[in-house]
Amino acid sequence: VEYDGTAYAGFQWQPQQPSVQAALEAAIRVVTGKESRVIAAGRTDAGAHALGQVIAFTTSTRLDEATLVRALNAHLPPDIVIQSIETVDPTFHPRFDAISREYHYLLFNRPTPSPLWRNRALHVPYTLELRTMQVAAQKLVGQHDFTAFSGTAPLSSSEHRQCTVRELYDVGVEQCSNLVRIRFVGNAFMKHMIRTIVGTLLRVGSGRMSIAEFEEIFRSHDQRRAGPTVPAYGLYLVRVNYPTESQSQ
Amino acid sequence: VEYDGTAYAGFQWQPQQPSVQAALEAAIRVVTGKESRVIAAGRTDAGAHALGQVIAFTTSTRLDEATLVRALNAHLPPDIVIQSIETVDPTFHPRFDAISREYHYLLFNRPTPSPLWRNRALHVPYTLELRTMQVAAQKLVGQHDFTAFSGTAPLSSSEHRQCTVRELYDVGVEQCSNLVRIRFVGNAFMKHMIRTIVGTLLRVGSGRMSIAEFEEIFRSHDQRRAGPTVPAYGLYLVRVNYPTESQSQ
Repeated sequence: VEYDGTAYAGFQWQPQQPSVQAALEAAIRVVTGKESRVIAAGRTDAGAHALGQVIAFTTSTRLDEATLVRALNAHLPPDIVIQSIETVDPTFHPRFDAISREYHYLLFNRPTPSPLWRNRALHVPYTLELRTMQVAAQKLVGQHDFTAFSGTAPLSSSEHRQCTVRELYDVGVEQCSNLVRIRFVGNAFMKHMIRTIVGTLLRVGSGRMSIAEFEEIFRSHDQRRAGPTVPAYGLYLVRVNYPTESQSQ
Repeated sequence: VEYDGTAYAGFQWQPQQPSVQAALEAAIRVVTGKESRVIAAGRTDAGAHALGQVIAFTTSTRLDEATLVRALNAHLPPDIVIQSIETVDPTFHPRFDAISREYHYLLFNRPTPSPLWRNRALHVPYTLELRTMQVAAQKLVGQHDFTAFSGTAPLSSSEHRQCTVRELYDVGVEQCSNLVRIRFVGNAFMKHMIRTIVGTLLRVGSGRMSIAEFEEIFRSHDQRRAGPTVPAYGLYLVRVNYPTESQSQ
C-alpha cells in the first residue's frame, strides 16, 4: 500500500481522527460486505508516508486479486492506493514475519523552502556536509542498543533493556539536486528512532557536532544528548522484506 | 517564483477565484505598503506548477533584496515561494525580454496511480514505448507552424497565421523509475500547445499512432487529428531565459 500521510493521524486507528487503517477497513467493508481488521507491517506516525506498506486482512470474497485491487482502489481516497494483493497462508503476519524494513527520510536543502516538497521533505536552509553525515551514519550499522535515539517516544512499561537493541543493515546519505535522501535498512526500528537519528545527523551535517561526539552519544545510550526528533512528514516506509517462502503460498 | 498550482485557478488574476498573481500582489501590498501590479513571464493554467516562474513588479521599498525575499515569503501561502529577487532596469519585461522557456510535463507510468504524485503527474496506466515517443518528439524541433497542437485553446480574433509559428530548441523524453519527464525548450509556446503535444505523443507511445502519422498530423496543421489536451497538473514552468545584459542592471 502506498499513501500520502499528510491528511492522516497515522496508520493506526484512533477515535475521531482519520487514519490509514480506518480508510482501508472502510473500503474493504464496502467491497466485501464484511468487517475486516487490517494488520500492518509498521505503524507510521501522523504525517509520515508509505511507498511500500504491507497489510494483511482475512476475507471470504470470491473476487480475484486483480479485481480486488481495482475495487478497493475505487473506494479508497486518492491519497491511499493499493499496489497489489496476494493470497497468503492464514498464519502470515505482516509485522512478525518481516525480516527487514527500508525507510527513507527526505531533506530539502536550500535557503528557501520548496512549495512542491512541503509535507514531503524537511526544509533544511543551512549548508550540509553530506560526506561527514555519511561517515557518522556508518557508525550505526550493525547490532546495537539504540536507546540514545529513542527520542521523545515514551518507553512502555513492558519494554526493558533488551527491547532497545536493533540491527541496522545499511544506512546511506545520497543527494540529487536539492533533495537529500537518508536511507535506513534494518531488522526493526523503534518509534521515533529514525527521526531522532536524522535530527542528530543534522547537527553533524551543520558542523555543530563532531563525528566522535555523535558516536560517543550513541555509545552512551543517553537520550538527552541526541538531537531533536525531526517531523514525521519527511519519513517514508519504502519496503518490507519477508523470507521468500512465507510471503505467499 | 516556485509554486504548487493545485489550489489556484492559474497564474493570472481572476474575479472571485484564487490566483498566484493575487497571492503575490497581496504579499507585496502587506510588505511594501503599496499596491503593485505583478507581470509574469508565462501565464500558467489552473493546476499547473512552476519551478522557475519569473515575475516583475515596481516598488519604492528600502528593503534590500534578501530581506524582501524573506518578508514576502513570510506573507505568502506555503504553496508559493519566492527564490530570489534582483533589481532590474525599469524597462525589463519578464515576458517580452525572455529569449526561451523550459517546460516539463510529468507522467506517472504504472498500472496503479501514485498517491504522492497525484496533482503533480499524469497517471498513465498502460505501457509506453518511450524510444518511439522520443523519435516522434524530435520531429518538432526547429521553427514550425504548431497549429496542429494548438489544442482546445480558442484562437483570439487578433491572432492570425503568423502567430502559430514557434521555435522549439529541444525536446526530450526521459525516464526515472515510474516517472517519465517530457522536456520542452523553445522560444515561446501557445496556450495548450505542450499539453496537446503530450496527448498526441501518448498515442504514439501506446502504439495507437505511428511516427509517420504523428509527423503527418503536425505538417497538416489540422487540430482535429491531434491527440487530446492532457491535464494541466502534469505541467511545470521550469525556467525562463533572458539575454545576460537585460536580466539585471
